[in-house]
Amino acid sequence: MVITLGELAARLNGKIAGDSNKKISGVASIQEAKKNDISFLFDARYQKFLDSSDAGALLLSEEFSDSFSPSIVVKNSDKAYVELLSIFADEKSISNSIHKSAIIGENCDISESISIAGNVVIGDNVVIGDNTIIEPNVTIGNDVTIGNDCYFSPSSVIYERVKIGNRVRVHAGAIIGSDGFGFRNIKGTIRKVYHLGDVQIGDDVEIGANTTIDRGTVGSTIIENGCKLDNLIQIAHNVHLGKNCMLAAQVGIAGSTKLGHSVIMGGKSGIAGHLEIGNQVMIATKAGVTHSFSSNLILSGFPAREHTASKRIEAIISRLPKIITDLRGMRHQIEKLEEEMHA
Amino acid sequence: MVITLGELAARLNGKIAGDSNKKISGVASIQEAKKNDISFLFDARYQKFLDSSDAGALLLSEEFSDSFSPSIVVKNSDKAYVELLSIFADEKSISNSIHKSAIIGENCDISESISIAGNVVIGDNVVIGDNTIIEPNVTIGNDVTIGNDCYFSPSSVIYERVKIGNRVRVHAGAIIGSDGFGFRNIKGTIRKVYHLGDVQIGDDVEIGANTTIDRGTVGSTIIENGCKLDNLIQIAHNVHLGKNCMLAAQVGIAGSTKLGHSVIMGGKSGIAGHLEIGNQVMIATKAGVTHSFSSNLILSGFPAREHTASKRIEAIISRLPKIITDLRGMRHQIEKLEEEMHA
Amino acid sequence: MVITLGELAARLNGKIAGDSNKKISGVASIQEAKKNDISFLFDARYQKFLDSSDAGALLLSEEFSDSFSPSIVVKNSDKAYVELLSIFADEKSISNSIHKSAIIGENCDISESISIAGNVVIGDNVVIGDNTIIEPNVTIGNDVTIGNDCYFSPSSVIYERVKIGNRVRVHAGAIIGSDGFGFRNIKGTIRKVYHLGDVQIGDDVEIGANTTIDRGTVGSTIIENGCKLDNLIQIAHNVHLGKNCMLAAQVGIAGSTKLGHSVIMGGKSGIAGHLEIGNQVMIATKAGVTHSFSSNLILSGFPAREHTASKRIEAIISRLPKIITDLRGMRHQIEKLEEEMHA
Repeated sequence: MVITLGELAARLNGKIAGDSNKKISGVASIQEAKKNDISFLFDARYQKFLDSSDAGALLLSEEFSDSFSPSIVVKNSDKAYVELLSIFADEKSISNSIHKSAIIGENCDISESISIAGNVVIGDNVVIGDNTIIEPNVTIGNDVTIGNDCYFSPSSVIYERVKIGNRVRVHAGAIIGSDGFGFRNIKGTIRKVYHLGDVQIGDDVEIGANTTIDRGTVGSTIIENGCKLDNLIQIAHNVHLGKNCMLAAQVGIAGSTKLGHSVIMGGKSGIAGHLEIGNQVMIATKAGVTHSFSSNLILSGFPAREHTASKRIEAIISRLPKIITDLRGMRHQIEKLEEEMHA
Repeated sequence: MVITLGELAARLNGKIAGDSNKKISGVASIQEAKKNDISFLFDARYQKFLDSSDAGALLLSEEFSDSFSPSIVVKNSDKAYVELLSIFADEKSISNSIHKSAIIGENCDISESISIAGNVVIGDNVVIGDNTIIEPNVTIGNDVTIGNDCYFSPSSVIYERVKIGNRVRVHAGAIIGSDGFGFRNIKGTIRKVYHLGDVQIGDDVEIGANTTIDRGTVGSTIIENGCKLDNLIQIAHNVHLGKNCMLAAQVGIAGSTKLGHSVIMGGKSGIAGHLEIGNQVMIATKAGVTHSFSSNLILSGFPAREHTASKRIEAIISRLPKIITDLRGMRHQIEKLEEEMHA
Repeated sequence: MVITLGELAARLNGKIAGDSNKKISGVASIQEAKKNDISFLFDARYQKFLDSSDAGALLLSEEFSDSFSPSIVVKNSDKAYVELLSIFADEKSISNSIHKSAIIGENCDISESISIAGNVVIGDNVVIGDNTIIEPNVTIGNDVTIGNDCYFSPSSVIYERVKIGNRVRVHAGAIIGSDGFGFRNIKGTIRKVYHLGDVQIGDDVEIGANTTIDRGTVGSTIIENGCKLDNLIQIAHNVHLGKNCMLAAQVGIAGSTKLGHSVIMGGKSGIAGHLEIGNQVMIATKAGVTHSFSSNLILSGFPAREHTASKRIEAIISRLPKIITDLRGMRHQIEKLEEEMHA
């Protein structure tokens, strides 16, 4: 990928300063950029690296507009940054081929506009739309349906009957559709609860590496459009994530819990089973949610409370040694008063 | 799977009300059931969905015996529920075949009553009993022994010398027998502690998706009969789980810790290394156990204490803002007393 | 592996007592050792098993030098223990072959001194040095560089452009180079931040089973020489681990955080994003680090504090029920004083 600064400016909807013919072949941080790289400066904390930067050009937010040349100055730096990276992303193109080592089951309906890599195994009655890429060693079970423009990284596993929408990315080692964790003690014998349900994944969903999503016991585990899941997350049976939820790494959600839309969960946070969480709730890192909450809240701590309450408690906890010293002083004062009183 | 309500009633040991010839082809929740589905009602919270349910029939506990027709009424609803789901579970049947792409090592003793799917790799000297299913992209190392009626989901990995009993289910991406995390600093050089031990897994064990079980340094990591492990669990080297332990997702147990039988661990809980936990101990979600405990306890918190003690502390913590206000009041009273005294 | 006690003593730099021709074929714990096994005793807690041990020989630290025969007595028992296990480790030898089912891309530079097992898939332009073992079902992306003497366990996945040094062990299911978790909300649309960076892994690194390491957004995620990572760890984009860091299972480190050398993190601990942690910092189990810390500290708790401060707070928390009782007493004293004063 080589592009002139002028073309880049046009695609980023920015104003160019300096040589518009300069050729750019990569993106790098301001400290690491080489002479053919474009870098970016949107944050004053990185301004100190300007003088020593070898960057060939800089993408600048308006406040830094005269600080470097050549440069592209943009109004919406978030948008330009996302665009810039997408331009240089080395996304794979569709090979329109199925590697000869791939094993495809019977009665499948797979688009010809597809890339299926080596040692992929696909079951029977599988439907896959256009422009989907399936990397090596992926396994897709029977009766799975997959939309258009999806991407399955190596060793991801899609169990039977899972339904996946369009533009879904499944990272390496992610498991979708495993049995839920259900057992019953029937007169001293532990019996398995068989899982007849499925997993339904909407459009524009991203599933992180080694994340696991269990199927419903009956009915579905549902991940609505636009949800983004980081790595090593556990989604139990019959969980329902509303659209545009964002879950950071190592989150866990127990069975049958339902989240509204745009819920954000910090790393290592968790939610117990059979709860309902409203829309646009933010759950802090390591929080543990043990009862249902309505919409538009910020939660933290374990057990999770509204963040203002957690913060107040946390502030007191950090002052406990001082409070204990104060208490000793008070006790001393009381004893002195008692002595004086009874003297 | 299509079955008449009459046949179902017989298999569930229930009393039929209504048309015993009605054909049932699936199981669904009371809200989602369609006219050929059977649903179930054991819990008054779901009674409100009765009127609008499209279910073709209901499995009912005795308290709801007249609420729907046709229906099957049972005495032990837990048992009937487990049975019902097992009847409709689309368990795979044994193909009695090894896919031509599978790679089988030398000197193996593999039953003919088996299903080995595409791209499975099995090492040398492997023994596998009857009626075991091995799904695509599974790897089984040298000298592994596997019993009857086991199920290995895609991309699970069994390292060398692991021993697995009968009726064991290993979910996708689970890793059994990886090296323990052992290193020694020998005069400034970090040296690897090689792991010569193995993993021994009993009968009727279930290992969740992407769970990892390390081998013993010397000797064995042991998972006794009937243990059920959820997804993304870490079992370190030389851990010993007594029979019928149930571990929820994202649990971690450090090296050489021994659990008695029927220990239950909530999601994200953990136990430090070299400890002993008795029988029938319940460890709450997110608890962190830092010393040994005897049998028949409920533990919670970090550091984990008996639950009644943790609850008392937690209740005080949630009242801390009120306690601080009270303290200010007391200080004020003391100051007033001092003033009055010294006036 | 069969070796005489005399040869073992020579390799372990120890002093033999008893029959130097005795043949040893394995290592086991003092309780489990059989007559052809050597066991070890360095710790008085295990002395009680001496009398009933069936061990064929014992490796002893000097304090136990006369307690068993035959035996090998060593000065540095840690070193001898590590050596002993390495002698009996059944490390695979290089087969100098590529299994016929492996798929190798174009333009690769792969040493002839290699073992590549069945169903491995390797992309284009991949460089692999001498004496590296690649186990079944591993996937290695395009443009990956791997050094000498590495070991890739089954189903591990190395994404495009990752660089790996010498003597690196990647355990089963580990994922190196997945996309970081980056999204931006651009006027209500959630846009993916494409990840153009890579992962650079130094020499003598060990990556645990099902651990995930994301690539840099731009620039690199860096794991320096000698780092050891246990299972189920999450390393986010652009994290930088200094040399010889040791991370226990289920640790999580958020994006762009930089650790110095020799940082030790206990199981389930975590560090937030964009922080700097100094050298030789020890972070306790389950700790959550929320701001930067300098070198040579011990941290614990959430939010993580220096361990002495956390311990003081934790001690107070465990005394809270007693403190509340005391408070009630004080209140009672104050009320009595007030009554007496105003009587």
